[in-house]
Amino acid sequence: MDHPHIAPLDDQNAIQIAELFASFSDPTRVRILSSLLAGEVNVGDLVQSLGLSKSAISHQLRSLRDKRVIRARKQGRQVFVALDDEHIKELFQRGLDHILHT
Amino acid sequence: MDHPHIAPLDDQNAIQIAELFASFSDPTRVRILSSLLAGEVNVGDLVQSLGLSKSAISHQLRSLRDKRVIRARKQGRQVFVALDDEHIKELFQRGLDHILHT
Repeated sequence: MDHPHIAPLDDQNAIQIAELFASFSDPTRVRILSSLLAGEVNVGDLVQSLGLSKSAISHQLRSLRDKRVIRARKQGRQVFVALDDEHIKELFQRGLDHILHT
Repeated sequence: MDHPHIAPLDDQNAIQIAELFASFSDPTRVRILSSLLAGEVNVGDLVQSLGLSKSAISHQLRSLRDKRVIRARKQGRQVFVALDDEHIKELFQRGLDHILHT
């Protein structure tokens, strides 16, 4: 009988990984992240395209920034947001592909 | 001024994607999934290696099966569980790499 060696993650890493995936586990955040796949977006355009209140979007954007899933920059009176890096982009894209193409 | 076209996901897809990621967003489920990355595992060995109760593990395994993240097969009196497919494996592995290597 085969008993492969199982090396479980330590608790701290498991919590961090769970938190990363949790940032993708809300439908509004999913819609925001999906809108950022093609590149940086103006927050005003995002609010308009999602048809949600500015305060609801701002709340989720803050939460995504806190978890370093997105980054933001100001230009004059406008704010632009983008996915934080290529890893986040690929990770999210794979989840999206899995659902859309199965 | 550039105004890229934003095509948001529809609500149903956003909910499905959020649910997929939600299945990775609990530390116990993360530890279980991480133990399955190398291949199929006997549930008895899994319980032993994670140091959690059989009922806690069984509860999470049921939830992961319901979401088709893992599959199970019986062999005599033993139950073996495995990640459901390569997409799930790669998706989870990427999240894990992102946390462990940054």
